[in-house]
Amino acid sequence: MAYELDYWPDIQGRGEFVRLVLEEAGADYVDVARERDGEARMLALLAREDIATPPFAAPFLKDGDIIIGQTAAILLYLGDRHGLAPRDASLRLWTHQIQLTIADLVSEAHETHHPLGADLSYEEQKDAAARRAKSFRETRIPKFLRWFETILANNPRGDACLVGDAVTTADLSLFQAVEGLLYAFPTATRAALAETSRVARLHGAIAQRPRIRAHLTSGRRIAFNDYGIFRHYPELDSRSNPRERA
Amino acid sequence: MAYELDYWPDIQGRGEFVRLVLEEAGADYVDVARERDGEARMLALLAREDIATPPFAAPFLKDGDIIIGQTAAILLYLGDRHGLAPRDASLRLWTHQIQLTIADLVSEAHETHHPLGADLSYEEQKDAAARRAKSFRETRIPKFLRWFETILANNPRGDACLVGDAVTTADLSLFQAVEGLLYAFPTATRAALAETSRVARLHGAIAQRPRIRAHLTSGRRIAFNDYGIFRHYPELDSRSNPRERA
Repeated sequence: MAYELDYWPDIQGRGEFVRLVLEEAGADYVDVARERDGEARMLALLAREDIATPPFAAPFLKDGDIIIGQTAAILLYLGDRHGLAPRDASLRLWTHQIQLTIADLVSEAHETHHPLGADLSYEEQKDAAARRAKSFRETRIPKFLRWFETILANNPRGDACLVGDAVTTADLSLFQAVEGLLYAFPTATRAALAETSRVARLHGAIAQRPRIRAHLTSGRRIAFNDYGIFRHYPELDSRSNPRERA
Repeated sequence: MAYELDYWPDIQGRGEFVRLVLEEAGADYVDVARERDGEARMLALLAREDIATPPFAAPFLKDGDIIIGQTAAILLYLGDRHGLAPRDASLRLWTHQIQLTIADLVSEAHETHHPLGADLSYEEQKDAAARRAKSFRETRIPKFLRWFETILANNPRGDACLVGDAVTTADLSLFQAVEGLLYAFPTATRAALAETSRVARLHGAIAQRPRIRAHLTSGRRIAFNDYGIFRHYPELDSRSNPRERA
């Protein structure tokens, strides 16, 4: 039976981390909210109060009767089933730990344009966003990318993958995080990648994997845009934004 | 061999979620950074660049040669080893999914006093904090607590625990999250708990467990304070904070 993935139909967002794993696995799946009436079905499920294991938010994955929310938990589930996680228990936990840190990076990227809350538009919080983006760009992007670089450099099985010598969900997710950062903060991210060549190489290598490449050029890949998690507001990528003094 | 927990010595923070599990398990552990020179040892480990599985941040747990970072990953590891996770694989994943959602709640609680970035003090971002806290207090606290309430209400094994009929790491962490919210936002949290009586009851029941009660009254329980994740700034708990108009 095909998996069913429920996520907002018009953004890559957290759903794309799941899509990349399903695509690399060659798994059969339905992207529910992109089907006719699908978004309404997703919202109806999120509003139900009679589910024993209700998802808190999208994305969530249905595999028969099982419903799984939280991106990292979905990838933990899929990684095991599709050979995209190490077999060794401590390396599996290590892979998941990397995955959780990527989730933190994604949340922080979202905070740059909505520091005051998701109930206000970006336009209503541009000064606060400028200040938060400065900190993210100057401190957090380099810190995260250096951490991934260290992991690659120290991997006893070589620096082609984050864990072991085969691709895991964490490699696919790091690719996607870098994609998002390059879209949202091209100047800051290129500068950070210049110092983290293994991360840059991994990003390029994942993009060339046949199934990922096919996905990226397909209609299933939604273009980045300015209502997703990674948004390109040029002023947030700039060192000369006067609002940063806020 | 005793576990070693590394976390900032003067706050409960994310470390307390790990401590509660170790205490409930009756596990032998050293709270490294609270030992003489311990904080320097923790910082030295975080700065090392030669570790194959480096922690990104504190807390991290050492079990012999294994180092595990990310609170939810630590609890996944400990839960299995100490009978604080279900044996059934899908219920284990469900427990972990709840754990990840508690982690999101904790991160959002931190954002209320540092929306512009951790590189500025609270005093430098009071207007932004007021606006973010309004959204957290009015929308997010009730949404999170209602989700936990639904889980308890729909648990086929009864509403005493989040998963199954025995205490898991998720119950201990929900207790701690409610503790933190009651400290930081007493008015808003009491109002939300009045609508989520099962969550309030779980919070009370965990506090009465013998080992937890012994921990809470011991010197090992650091008092809440205003440099941790949960901070009590009365103005952030108030509906009449003029800064909210920011």
